[in-house]
Amino acid sequence: MELEFVAWLIERFGKTPRGPLRVGIGDDAAVLEIEPDQELVVTTDMLMEGVHFDSSQQPLALIGRKAVAVGLSDLAAMAARPLAAFVSLALPAESAERTAPCLIEAMADIAQQFDCVLAGGDTNCWSQPLVIDVCLVGCCPQGTAWLRRGARPGDQLVVTGSLGGSLLGKHLSFEPRVRQALYLRQHYCVHAACDLSDGLALDLRRLCKASGCGALLQAEAIPVSEAAHQAARSSGRTPLEHALGDGEDFELLLALPPQEAQRLCEDDRIGVAVSVVGTCTQDSQVRWQWKDGRCEPLPQLGYCHGARS
Amino acid sequence: MELEFVAWLIERFGKTPRGPLRVGIGDDAAVLEIEPDQELVVTTDMLMEGVHFDSSQQPLALIGRKAVAVGLSDLAAMAARPLAAFVSLALPAESAERTAPCLIEAMADIAQQFDCVLAGGDTNCWSQPLVIDVCLVGCCPQGTAWLRRGARPGDQLVVTGSLGGSLLGKHLSFEPRVRQALYLRQHYCVHAACDLSDGLALDLRRLCKASGCGALLQAEAIPVSEAAHQAARSSGRTPLEHALGDGEDFELLLALPPQEAQRLCEDDRIGVAVSVVGTCTQDSQVRWQWKDGRCEPLPQLGYCHGARS
Repeated sequence: MELEFVAWLIERFGKTPRGPLRVGIGDDAAVLEIEPDQELVVTTDMLMEGVHFDSSQQPLALIGRKAVAVGLSDLAAMAARPLAAFVSLALPAESAERTAPCLIEAMADIAQQFDCVLAGGDTNCWSQPLVIDVCLVGCCPQGTAWLRRGARPGDQLVVTGSLGGSLLGKHLSFEPRVRQALYLRQHYCVHAACDLSDGLALDLRRLCKASGCGALLQAEAIPVSEAAHQAARSSGRTPLEHALGDGEDFELLLALPPQEAQRLCEDDRIGVAVSVVGTCTQDSQVRWQWKDGRCEPLPQLGYCHGARS
Repeated sequence: MELEFVAWLIERFGKTPRGPLRVGIGDDAAVLEIEPDQELVVTTDMLMEGVHFDSSQQPLALIGRKAVAVGLSDLAAMAARPLAAFVSLALPAESAERTAPCLIEAMADIAQQFDCVLAGGDTNCWSQPLVIDVCLVGCCPQGTAWLRRGARPGDQLVVTGSLGGSLLGKHLSFEPRVRQALYLRQHYCVHAACDLSDGLALDLRRLCKASGCGALLQAEAIPVSEAAHQAARSSGRTPLEHALGDGEDFELLLALPPQEAQRLCEDDRIGVAVSVVGTCTQDSQVRWQWKDGRCEPLPQLGYCHGARS
């Protein structure tokens, strides 16, 4: 059922999609060429009106951008190169003609920025709120995908960018760390990685659990964003709590050997701030330490999807 | 955001998915191994409550089955071997705990029947009706995917199974023609193909348009299903009109050289009825012919997605 969608894309953008899409325009499915010795990395994310976005408050173009960007961030977390995006839309019928072009144009735009092609999809109308599903297909040389498991005691924990307060704007406009991930995969030994979608506190716990290790964070080393400070002015929480728990940072959390982490901190080709925030430990505890010597369990903060319902 | 979904799958089915899913369980995305010299075939379909199904009338297990089966049919239409399915759900919150297991179990079940693995997804709750999106990834040896274009004047047009009246039941329980397609790809020269999702009249027009040819159907050769006869008893339309226009048959339409079509009709290993329904022509007209010699343009029947809104 790709037919109308792809035909519409071609009409809209005046050209057939490029990239690895070899044939299949107007066919039942898209055909993608894969280079030899690559393995596939596939992720899918569904965003719903009233749950993940509010189209009465947020521009449609940013909503469309985000729908693709969250998947790109998942690919970055595995160090995969984006190839193709497949977009399914459930459009409110009364505004579909206005909504669809706006969404698709923004999606095609961010995909293109990361050498990824909108290669297919399914568009439908109904009398209910907007739903957007994006399935992203990427690739990486066999055996090189980063996983959550793989962190070892003694590894340094590194995050890109700064954390917290994403809801003030970054959650719609963040830059998925695809370029950084591809650069790192090529030039560094990374033991484990994930993207920070649910907050450092929760995502770090998952990485530690998958790796069978613990972590000791340096509280003062956590890169707290300006937005986290801003949010703290009215929330009654500290900027650090925002940095640990807000989620939707879409930064990378990496575990690397100490000498690699140090080399990374001195590497200005990475193109984004990187911070060593702590160390992986032999035990299974996840704690943080302050300069005054206090050492405590890391607060149980973070965005838990189970709470969505 | 695959994490909870895959964790839940593992818990539910008591084992990690098998197949080409090498690693990635619990990670941000799934990693799939692809055999050398294969190309990817990817399709996505979104089904919505009140548009594509009615969960107050239809069993959830059949709705889940259909959500995967329509994608399998798209892969069959390209002669691709199914590898992995990615499922996104927007679940009505009040019934999510009952709905999700029922859907997923049915999806995993039909996927497994076609050597395909549920490899990831995204589950969410909201206060609106059910939405199911399935992205299916398949593969075929490079250059062997069937396309709509490729039919040549003189080719015979062949359909599998029988057509019409699908809404009486087949649209929920149809057998995607994956096995037939893989067998045909291996043993026959097929010039063009598609699946019959919107009715023979419309899908044949699309195949002809893509191939730059016309078609002449033999009216009496069209395999009219029992359900088409049944539907005609109350619809005021003829069984043949149902066979041409109802859609959701999910049978294959193939264009093959005459000698191949004849060989196929005598091949009992195909495991399904096959009917030669007509011939591709040099001109661009799509017509049908009756035994009494009448020859008319094929009626403009078929399910047009644009009409959905």
